[in-house]
Amino acid sequence: MTDSLDALNNLPLRDDLRGRSPYGAPMLEVPYALNVNENTHPMPTEVVEAVTEGVREAARSLNRYPDRDFTELRSELAAFVGHGLDQNNLWAANGSNEILQQILQVFGGPGRRLMSFVPTYSMYPLLASGTNTEFVAGERAEDFSLSPESAARQVADQQPAITILCSPNNPTGTALDPEVVEAVYDAATSFDGIVVVDEAYAEFARDPDRTALRLLPGRERLIVSRTMSKAFALAGARIGYFAAAPAVVDAIKLVRLPYHLSAVTQATALAALRYRGRLLANVEDIKKQRDRIVEHLRDLGLSPASSDSNFVFFGGVGDSHGLWQDLLEDGVLIRDVGIPGHLRVTAGTEEETTAFLDSLDRHIERRRDLDPAGT
Amino acid sequence: MTDSLDALNNLPLRDDLRGRSPYGAPMLEVPYALNVNENTHPMPTEVVEAVTEGVREAARSLNRYPDRDFTELRSELAAFVGHGLDQNNLWAANGSNEILQQILQVFGGPGRRLMSFVPTYSMYPLLASGTNTEFVAGERAEDFSLSPESAARQVADQQPAITILCSPNNPTGTALDPEVVEAVYDAATSFDGIVVVDEAYAEFARDPDRTALRLLPGRERLIVSRTMSKAFALAGARIGYFAAAPAVVDAIKLVRLPYHLSAVTQATALAALRYRGRLLANVEDIKKQRDRIVEHLRDLGLSPASSDSNFVFFGGVGDSHGLWQDLLEDGVLIRDVGIPGHLRVTAGTEEETTAFLDSLDRHIERRRDLDPAGT
Repeated sequence: MTDSLDALNNLPLRDDLRGRSPYGAPMLEVPYALNVNENTHPMPTEVVEAVTEGVREAARSLNRYPDRDFTELRSELAAFVGHGLDQNNLWAANGSNEILQQILQVFGGPGRRLMSFVPTYSMYPLLASGTNTEFVAGERAEDFSLSPESAARQVADQQPAITILCSPNNPTGTALDPEVVEAVYDAATSFDGIVVVDEAYAEFARDPDRTALRLLPGRERLIVSRTMSKAFALAGARIGYFAAAPAVVDAIKLVRLPYHLSAVTQATALAALRYRGRLLANVEDIKKQRDRIVEHLRDLGLSPASSDSNFVFFGGVGDSHGLWQDLLEDGVLIRDVGIPGHLRVTAGTEEETTAFLDSLDRHIERRRDLDPAGT
Repeated sequence: MTDSLDALNNLPLRDDLRGRSPYGAPMLEVPYALNVNENTHPMPTEVVEAVTEGVREAARSLNRYPDRDFTELRSELAAFVGHGLDQNNLWAANGSNEILQQILQVFGGPGRRLMSFVPTYSMYPLLASGTNTEFVAGERAEDFSLSPESAARQVADQQPAITILCSPNNPTGTALDPEVVEAVYDAATSFDGIVVVDEAYAEFARDPDRTALRLLPGRERLIVSRTMSKAFALAGARIGYFAAAPAVVDAIKLVRLPYHLSAVTQATALAALRYRGRLLANVEDIKKQRDRIVEHLRDLGLSPASSDSNFVFFGGVGDSHGLWQDLLEDGVLIRDVGIPGHLRVTAGTEEETTAFLDSLDRHIERRRDLDPAGT
């Protein structure tokens, strides 16, 4: 390990990469993997078949480059997101990480800043680094909420080329009021800034009408990023997309790697979109389990955030890393996001949720017996 | 069009992107598409089936993130490339463009240079721009050849952080002597530079033993980039890979987007690797057609380069854009790479090659009748 670390650090790496470790949650084999906000419901058989048949068709001409502009997929994505958008408003890439990287390549770069409000998705600073953009961490209130006034003031102060608002936010699970997006947009456009609303978890919101998609008309510098990884249960297929003004799509074409979206990926996405009724039915069940977790955690005297996503962030657990370890010993892997006293758990199937809650009950009770003061 | 161009240029683009157009060959529907160096042989049925079955299996757990380190694929790629390499030497990404972008993100960036010898693959300067790396165009001899002395001297003069040697080179089709790679490597390591040999077309070389893979032992800063797009006939699947010292692979993990290679892509690559005997059999036929083109063009009095790839670059055609247009009118789409008097054609199936040569014969004859002096 030391040898291989030496060999790595001997390489002529970019200076800001020195001493870094690769991003990524631990990949452990456990009975209950509730750590990376996957959709844990099994893939419906009819979707497996539809994907398989779509890929069979695509495989016949895999020797040819794919449709560089994936017009059919963009058109189907537009039909799915609605809000009067068409294919000229839509773009897709290999996961929303690539979507955000492309946005940073066009609108970020040396001498420009990316701002987001922490705690938030931990890839944002890494994507900034990967594109030589300076990352500026904006602040939230002590309860992790963000008011329109505070957000707009911070953006006006920092003048970031790009502001990313994650809503529902990862790791807190909370959705932003549309007023926050509007206030940040108004502040950002005064200095020609781009605003991205990362809605990776939008389909799980208690009120799906609060999407920033409805703010797009008349806002030429607003980008709403989405993914098929969560609600569509396609984390393994890596399909992110965004909706924005057509000029933004044209701009991304200046930096996207040609043919970045494979014919196999396009076929997979199209098949899943055809079966969206079936896939999105699971979303309703996941929301039920999520609400069940929030309620149960409140009953336990913990402090779960009001979740609009497929996971629950909760505080009040004291030694969070110790509790994380206890749960893991029961085969329940959740996420320690590095915020003392807090943990994050994915809402899984009913059975997985029960396993998590049972394990949690036991360990919370044991800890309270050992330390009734809760220190 | 003007309106949409105005809208694009009104956006707060990075300064160096202003006024640019997206990269990409024209995508035209023609009977004979011999313009982007695809493997035009139809996909063998057994490969279509193997890909389909591989994806069916992967589709069952598409709701989960893929293996972030794709160890099985890296191990199978290592077995394919041989030369004593193992999975720790191998890395893959969505096409060799993404491979090169990752290398530039780690070893390039602001204040650093990428050097290559033009004419060469036209994506290199774009990849440099996309990663804020300065591109330095090295020179070749008038016949587009590159000697070890000239290459090493230019590298020593410019001290690029990264040098890319494309061999066989696109668009000329010519392979470099291993002595060029050795000389450039020696020059580059004196100032801590990385050397990439882009071997996208290596399987088509007349002497496949001249691969830079055999230069890897003891050369910790050499990277040999390959692709499954050409010999493996998987342009539509977007799978590039490289072989290098394990520390280079570790370095790439610092910038690669997590889970960048989808489960569907991994399954597709694995299926194709299992059927490599069948896929690579077509390579022999393509080489025959390539040699047939070179010979025929020589007989016509044109100047084809000695090709080690699946395409032929040829000069001596006078009005190259006019000839390109003439061929297109016959349904034969080849590539005008922007070098006056030269064109590039992909070696297709026997039938496609015949269609190209017949059309070429007619137009060359007609042109000579019109202008016997060949001006």
